[in-house]
Amino acid sequence: MPTLRIDLGPRSYDIVIVPREPEFRAAHPGLAEFVRHTLPHSTAALVVGDTNTRPYAQEVEAALAAAGWRTAMAVVPAGEASKCLAQLARLYDALYELAADRQTAVIAVGGGMVGDLAGFAAATYNRGLPLIMVPTSLLAMVDSSVGGKTAINHPQGKNLIGAFHQPRGVWIDLAHLGTLPEREYLSGLAEVVKYGVILDAEFFEFLEAQAAQVRDRKSAVIPEVVARCCRLKADVVERDEYETTGLRAILNYGHTFAHAYETLAGYGTLLHGEAVAIGMMDAARLAQQLGLVDATFVARQQRLLEAFWLPTSPLFELATEELLAVMRRDKKAAAGQLRFILPTRLGEVKLVDAVPETLVRTVLERR
Amino acid sequence: MPTLRIDLGPRSYDIVIVPREPEFRAAHPGLAEFVRHTLPHSTAALVVGDTNTRPYAQEVEAALAAAGWRTAMAVVPAGEASKCLAQLARLYDALYELAADRQTAVIAVGGGMVGDLAGFAAATYNRGLPLIMVPTSLLAMVDSSVGGKTAINHPQGKNLIGAFHQPRGVWIDLAHLGTLPEREYLSGLAEVVKYGVILDAEFFEFLEAQAAQVRDRKSAVIPEVVARCCRLKADVVERDEYETTGLRAILNYGHTFAHAYETLAGYGTLLHGEAVAIGMMDAARLAQQLGLVDATFVARQQRLLEAFWLPTSPLFELATEELLAVMRRDKKAAAGQLRFILPTRLGEVKLVDAVPETLVRTVLERR
Repeated sequence: MPTLRIDLGPRSYDIVIVPREPEFRAAHPGLAEFVRHTLPHSTAALVVGDTNTRPYAQEVEAALAAAGWRTAMAVVPAGEASKCLAQLARLYDALYELAADRQTAVIAVGGGMVGDLAGFAAATYNRGLPLIMVPTSLLAMVDSSVGGKTAINHPQGKNLIGAFHQPRGVWIDLAHLGTLPEREYLSGLAEVVKYGVILDAEFFEFLEAQAAQVRDRKSAVIPEVVARCCRLKADVVERDEYETTGLRAILNYGHTFAHAYETLAGYGTLLHGEAVAIGMMDAARLAQQLGLVDATFVARQQRLLEAFWLPTSPLFELATEELLAVMRRDKKAAAGQLRFILPTRLGEVKLVDAVPETLVRTVLERR
Repeated sequence: MPTLRIDLGPRSYDIVIVPREPEFRAAHPGLAEFVRHTLPHSTAALVVGDTNTRPYAQEVEAALAAAGWRTAMAVVPAGEASKCLAQLARLYDALYELAADRQTAVIAVGGGMVGDLAGFAAATYNRGLPLIMVPTSLLAMVDSSVGGKTAINHPQGKNLIGAFHQPRGVWIDLAHLGTLPEREYLSGLAEVVKYGVILDAEFFEFLEAQAAQVRDRKSAVIPEVVARCCRLKADVVERDEYETTGLRAILNYGHTFAHAYETLAGYGTLLHGEAVAIGMMDAARLAQQLGLVDATFVARQQRLLEAFWLPTSPLFELATEELLAVMRRDKKAAAGQLRFILPTRLGEVKLVDAVPETLVRTVLERR
């Protein structure tokens, strides 16, 4: 099975990428066996899904139950609004009902929301339970399921409450991409573009050349896209697991803007990737204002995002001052000063401290 | 200033013990200066207290504000019932209102409840804020403020939700012991006795010899008692920070029983130390049933607890089966099997797996 290893000493783990081809799948072990192999001391699991992934979560639960595990399932409403204290409390209750001990696994079956929420429950119940990520959206496959960030939202700030808690394994089944609604799939491509911009010019060029194939989820390109993104993210996380050196912060390219859009639009109105696409354009224009990149760079990023049918400016009006107020509370902000990850050329970004608010206003107001 | 160092690599920190003598205090720097020295990159702090420690929390806040810090204060109702999601949400709101960034400090001024609750908020807001522990109860000074365990309660299980998050510094001001209500003070002595039983026979003998002085909070013995307990705990935490080797679990001597009593009696009915005293007697009798210790050991532990006016059996009836049901869900349980830390001789304990429930019943029913 195609497998990537993320090397974090005692917290190292495997990311398995399962191809779509039926003949390949028939010849290889499935998820339940991966879970059992990864967690040899576990005999119980809480499988967490949402109202969209429920059928697959049920399959996972049934396979583990058939292997003799004690299992339970928790299903939360689909959508970002479920990343809240109330749904978290439901997962705690389910773990209590299951009589979870420190070997009881949490298996997150779903997109970024399910992974973040179930991951945070796993991080904090009994001060830490083993976690298996089973991402079903492109965004979760290439980004949120790898690296150990878990979170819920504060009513006024996305991901403000969370913990670092590495999964014990990640199981990426590319078959899920076939049934993903188009808007969900395209949203995930925003993070794919991000990896090209921040780390890998060659990958960016590959995406430009294969844009239609990538957009149409062709088997000729998808395994490569997912594996490349996971490897790029793993390399960053290996070098800065807890976001202390500043390196890991580059993964937040476009995200300071994006979180503000998501927060003010109301969680779930904009998909995360859509907000990131708009945020990357803001960041690129801010970099241009600061003389870090030229207009060609900005246009090239915009063309690729548009080739993936992603928005590159907000779809509705949001008040500049309110956006700024949210951005000042971003986790990356320092002492109320705005900080941004900005491109310096294709494949390279840097952290820019104390960006003047007037420049940010200019970008937000698209003057 | 008398200072202990807890050595955890990049997470090392100092525990300062401030004597009661006015002449000493006048000549040495205070808490605000300790905070500034410990957190040179911080300029903002949320001071958390409860309805009992409010005046001191206000002092701390005023001292930091006078030093130019942005500050806010959050006061939660005194009592174990405040270790809940609702109060946690209030602290998150207060941090949001303060526009907390990753350098914003959380300063926990209070007993074990405040330290656990504020510590868990610090562990999870922005995925981790610097935390200063300012324990005001004996129990918090000798136990809960050192070692990085933070938690809130699940309605059905004490400390079921939590995280490991080491403080950046601990400030133990012995003057607080002078004003502590007697029941609170005596409750803390249960943990003091625990250290003697599990790790240090010589210290146990010291407590026996000085029992009246210790009970009466005499300055001749208190600094030694607090420092010795902190050092004993620090030694354990240094060798098993995340409770993975089994060593750290010895600190839970008596606690599996105690948590069950606390849970079923209703949080706050029994003080934690009172429940621990009863739980240590249960554990000692269980060890005797298993032939690990003799009746002399059990009687000696009981005499010392009684010298500190601590309960050694439950003050009211609790149903054995309900106690067992809670104990099976203890964080230390494994696959529903009961595990206990049991004494083998004074100053030494071990983890005993798969203890037969019939023996535990015998102990609980005091037959």
